[in-house]
Amino acid sequence: MKKFLVLFGFISASLFSQQKTNTTNKNFALVIHGGAGTILKENMSPELEKQYTDKLNDALKAGYDTLSKGGTSVDAVVTAIKILEDSPLFNAGKGSVFTADGKNEMDAAIMDGKTLKAGAVAGVKTIKNPITAARCVMDKSQHVMMVGSGAEKFAKTCKCDTADAAYFFEQKRWDQLQKIKKTEKTELDHGSSIKASDVEFNDKKFGTVGVAALDQYGNIAAGTSTGGMTNKKYGRVGDAPIIGAGTYANNKTCAISCTGHGEFFIRATVAHDVSALMEYKGLSLEKAADEVVNKKLKEMGGEGGLIGIDAKGNITMPFNSAGMYRGYMKSDGKKEILIYK
Amino acid sequence: MKKFLVLFGFISASLFSQQKTNTTNKNFALVIHGGAGTILKENMSPELEKQYTDKLNDALKAGYDTLSKGGTSVDAVVTAIKILEDSPLFNAGKGSVFTADGKNEMDAAIMDGKTLKAGAVAGVKTIKNPITAARCVMDKSQHVMMVGSGAEKFAKTCKCDTADAAYFFEQKRWDQLQKIKKTEKTELDHGSSIKASDVEFNDKKFGTVGVAALDQYGNIAAGTSTGGMTNKKYGRVGDAPIIGAGTYANNKTCAISCTGHGEFFIRATVAHDVSALMEYKGLSLEKAADEVVNKKLKEMGGEGGLIGIDAKGNITMPFNSAGMYRGYMKSDGKKEILIYK
Repeated sequence: MKKFLVLFGFISASLFSQQKTNTTNKNFALVIHGGAGTILKENMSPELEKQYTDKLNDALKAGYDTLSKGGTSVDAVVTAIKILEDSPLFNAGKGSVFTADGKNEMDAAIMDGKTLKAGAVAGVKTIKNPITAARCVMDKSQHVMMVGSGAEKFAKTCKCDTADAAYFFEQKRWDQLQKIKKTEKTELDHGSSIKASDVEFNDKKFGTVGVAALDQYGNIAAGTSTGGMTNKKYGRVGDAPIIGAGTYANNKTCAISCTGHGEFFIRATVAHDVSALMEYKGLSLEKAADEVVNKKLKEMGGEGGLIGIDAKGNITMPFNSAGMYRGYMKSDGKKEILIYK
Repeated sequence: MKKFLVLFGFISASLFSQQKTNTTNKNFALVIHGGAGTILKENMSPELEKQYTDKLNDALKAGYDTLSKGGTSVDAVVTAIKILEDSPLFNAGKGSVFTADGKNEMDAAIMDGKTLKAGAVAGVKTIKNPITAARCVMDKSQHVMMVGSGAEKFAKTCKCDTADAAYFFEQKRWDQLQKIKKTEKTELDHGSSIKASDVEFNDKKFGTVGVAALDQYGNIAAGTSTGGMTNKKYGRVGDAPIIGAGTYANNKTCAISCTGHGEFFIRATVAHDVSALMEYKGLSLEKAADEVVNKKLKEMGGEGGLIGIDAKGNITMPFNSAGMYRGYMKSDGKKEILIYK
């Protein structure tokens, strides 16, 4: 497998000096993903590739800056996810795909590994950054999950930015919907039969963004945000807003954000399963994540991947699909942004 | 703690003979709950107690009959839950509590331990038996979770019975809403401060019904159904429809249905955690469930309980609240229906 290595090297001296003034002498790091799926180099133009890697880099840097200035892992997760949500490239926030009704219905979740508090929203249509609504639910309510217009109403408590349908309209996503409607009339009953090779078409299945971070205080957190599935019907909810499936964080083990064919991730309780393998079987983060993604999920037929971090700053980014937009940045100077296997 | 033992004894000879004609010589069993909470004998009238135990008995018998006739564990779960949903006594189906808007919004989930297939619905208002809609999602769609009107629309695929607001109107539940509205103006921001001692008032927090079953073919399944939380706002969703939190089944380990303060059950991924303790740490069903309910959940402040069954027919019914409506019936003739500690 050929690695597409965009960046690898030491962080600038200025970042290190900044870190020292705020540090508790602990390392910090974050890892991000922008979705997994049939992402093949032969189908990707150099221009599009650069757009993806640039945006992943922006998100990594913003999250890293938050951590280096003493921000919490929850702060870093929200900061980095907002940047990905604001980009039309990823299936979350502005770039969200369309439902069968031509609407954008978004889901997001966040979990704090220190407190095991969590917040999630599903089926929101008017929140510019759904991850901020998820954080609002976590911080300001006694609840974990809110759906639909109720979630939107509650997000006002935190003055979350709203946006109208025009903001979320992306021609590319609209064209995807029309294309899928033609080929996939009864997706729900018969599953997808689409085998198109172009990137933008295929990423409709697995488009999601997610971040996991370790802060200077030794606390980890994870968040996930998605526009769901193109042409989705019947108020379908995937794994992203399901705590334990697409999103989970626990200081004792790991912080995980998943991306992939959501139904399998729910049935396999993927994020919590990685945590449980670490807690109860003593596996390392890498081995636990590999076991779940490349064995358990694969045996079920579940395509996708995840990113994870533990309280020591170890990072993992396994996937069983052709590609996954991903990257990490650590206080020891290591940084990578990758797309293909 | 005084046990309230309603029934204990051998099943009639007729049931045994029926079992023999269909059996694969395997044992079968089911276990049910009707919610956990501040259920104290001193607050319960003999008449109400009898109503609860009679209805639990009806559900147990119906589920048992399904199993004895060769029905699957999924069949038995649906059969028994429907009986509890049709009773105004429990916070599910007909007896569902009211939201802050004076509506009934119900959630349900089911999972098949043999296939790891699962189905869930949240926020449905017009489905007479939400568990049948959850099964419809599991059996007839490629999805696991559907919410709101989309879920209701999809349930038509399976011709699930519908019901209007008048069917779900129960004066007792309406009065509960008015009472709670008076004392709990800002529940979401400040949590509940209600310490009322009467059963009907307190069960609003933890009302849920659930069933776990083992069939003659050695397969287990679990299902949960709830009307949610009285006076709930903002489209809040609890643990019942969250696979891995309130509901989970896996032939390798256990089938679990939870009831309690849902937010804690989501954050602790309770149902999957019991399974993980069995799979990865080799704990028995009873020890795993005790660890989660009486240690992990209790330390977090999470009140409630669960019922569970494994593929050998072992049963557990732990709870850390004052009481839990519960019972089981096994092909070896053992049967119990209990309410208090």
